[in-house]
Amino acid sequence: MRIALLAGDGIGPEVIAQARRVLDALGLDLTYEEALVGGAAYKAVGHPLPPETLDVARRADAILFGAVGDFDCDHLERHLRPEQAILGLRKELVLFSNLRPAKMFAELADASALRPEVASAIDLVIVRELNGDVYFGEKGMRKTADGLREGYDIMSYNEAEVRRIAHSAFRAARARRGKLCSVDKANVLETSQLWRDVVIEVSADYPDVELSHMYVDNAAMQLVRNPGQFDVIVTGNLFGDILSDQASMCVGSIGMLASASLDANGKGLYEPIHGSAPDIAGQGKANPLATILSAAMMLRYSLDQGAAADRIEAAVAKALAGGARSPDLGGTMTTSEMGDAVLAAL
Amino acid sequence: MRIALLAGDGIGPEVIAQARRVLDALGLDLTYEEALVGGAAYKAVGHPLPPETLDVARRADAILFGAVGDFDCDHLERHLRPEQAILGLRKELVLFSNLRPAKMFAELADASALRPEVASAIDLVIVRELNGDVYFGEKGMRKTADGLREGYDIMSYNEAEVRRIAHSAFRAARARRGKLCSVDKANVLETSQLWRDVVIEVSADYPDVELSHMYVDNAAMQLVRNPGQFDVIVTGNLFGDILSDQASMCVGSIGMLASASLDANGKGLYEPIHGSAPDIAGQGKANPLATILSAAMMLRYSLDQGAAADRIEAAVAKALAGGARSPDLGGTMTTSEMGDAVLAAL
Ligand SMILES: CC(C)[C@H](C(=O)O)[C@@H](O)C(=O)O
Ligand SMILES: CC(C)[C@H](C(=O)O)[C@@H](O)C(=O)O
Repeated sequence: MRIALLAGDGIGPEVIAQARRVLDALGLDLTYEEALVGGAAYKAVGHPLPPETLDVARRADAILFGAVGDFDCDHLERHLRPEQAILGLRKELVLFSNLRPAKMFAELADASALRPEVASAIDLVIVRELNGDVYFGEKGMRKTADGLREGYDIMSYNEAEVRRIAHSAFRAARARRGKLCSVDKANVLETSQLWRDVVIEVSADYPDVELSHMYVDNAAMQLVRNPGQFDVIVTGNLFGDILSDQASMCVGSIGMLASASLDANGKGLYEPIHGSAPDIAGQGKANPLATILSAAMMLRYSLDQGAAADRIEAAVAKALAGGARSPDLGGTMTTSEMGDAVLAAL
Repeated sequence: MRIALLAGDGIGPEVIAQARRVLDALGLDLTYEEALVGGAAYKAVGHPLPPETLDVARRADAILFGAVGDFDCDHLERHLRPEQAILGLRKELVLFSNLRPAKMFAELADASALRPEVASAIDLVIVRELNGDVYFGEKGMRKTADGLREGYDIMSYNEAEVRRIAHSAFRAARARRGKLCSVDKANVLETSQLWRDVVIEVSADYPDVELSHMYVDNAAMQLVRNPGQFDVIVTGNLFGDILSDQASMCVGSIGMLASASLDANGKGLYEPIHGSAPDIAGQGKANPLATILSAAMMLRYSLDQGAAADRIEAAVAKALAGGARSPDLGGTMTTSEMGDAVLAAL
């Protein structure tokens, strides 16, 4: 089983190193190919997603990704910025279905800003569409009739794009508690109206799944008020970006949340949902658990190694129960000490 | 002083009635003109924002607005839906600056889903742009080259639009703790890049205000993790919609949050940020405090009656301290009993 390791920028290399240690300890037949990505790739070879990196990703069975983002690159033209690497991989490999589970580890009840009784009820998955929306429409700077600078971005979804993500989400709901909440802004956006219409059409194939609809402003509110009400949430690229970061904090720390970005055949890219955190890079302060949990998702979804995935997740829970805490969780352990704790628990 | 009273749909009439009682008790020289708006207007005269209603709003010194939204109207063409009434008023009257304060009433520390120590630190204002963004760009349904249905909405801001809201926000920050956080998604959106560039340009006029920038996904996370870090947040129409509803829940209930939508001369529309809540309409369950607090904002910002506004706000705090609680606050008081409690405290 061939894994592409794309560590990227900031804390990316540090957290990937710990995930690699955990994977190596499982005794599976894994081979790794490393490649440059993001600001690191730009600085080395002039492009955030060089063709060689894309090749490595294409020929791998799965991709483990760290993070991209580098303040040094903020002044570059948009197509050369680090973020274009992750957007490019999602688009080129047609990784349209992004699963972002948020579940409260009982051991972390103290770390959430939410009251323990609210936080402990969280067990949801956000299914975020990853190939469309205002992320990938035409965009640019232009002049208005009066000669003013204007920035614009076209938001859109077509029915095929909505249908495939809706099927992903209904299947995810069917495998869980059978409840799907579709989040949009259909009272204002035509893109959302099409989204809602198509989700309703697809629901005919899943009579066993209970479908509801919520406006995104209300969803942001309900995720604070009573996140335990949600099982699976399906939403577009932009709203999914916002709501999944919000949900991550409800379970204690963004340093805990893993994600899978899948194509139609189950090939996937796995990444922590936190970013490159340049402010703490190189200091051993990063929490590697989101990346380690992403590696577990990789084993389960792309490599058909469910038992190994279970072992990793159990080891993470055991490490937390044993008191392993990085700074984001209110502790003082370093990145590699957190890795040690998971390895010891394995 | 002439006030347009637009009660609208759902719980709108119930909460407006209580605000009216409170205003009447102040002994000010106020006259009222009522007008139909939203689904109620559509059902009566075939349009959610009839010309007569727009005239009433135009000739008033200030507008007190309830809520619009009615499930019966969800199948109508977009331009006939209730939401178009509030969007139309904001646009026609050039109410571009939406102030949404979120402050924890000490008496309500128990009602927030956040831990008391996190919630009690909240004292922020969201300044939301209200006349542009993906809300008002060209939008519609079209066919792709392959004949697929596609919904689209154009997101855009020009420099003049960003400049005027940035000035509003910098002034608001100067009148408070001097900190402004501009929220965008400049790593993906050109609209956000222009937003960020112009906010930075405007900041040259306000050397005494400390400006920072945050991506919207991070902001949604920080509003849960540590909302006390914010003083004034300035953002676009769509992100402001989402973040302000989220912030409302952090302070306990969306039933508490007032808002002002101002034009360049201080004329304004005042409304609770909650919606029409058709599920509880007519049952006396709605919390009228957000509307009563909106009336206070109206007195302060448009009618130059700061002392009367202070009286209302003090009465609301006193009513809460005395135990007044509607169902959203964990109590059993009806809408009019909540009004009684505020009147008694006045
Ligand atoms: C880095 C950025 C482009 C990206 C996104 O907005 O999708 C990130 O926030 C994420 O959620 O993976
Ligand atoms: C009713 C709707 C169009 C409106 C909006 O999205 O602006 C509402 O959610 C608000 O925040 O005032």
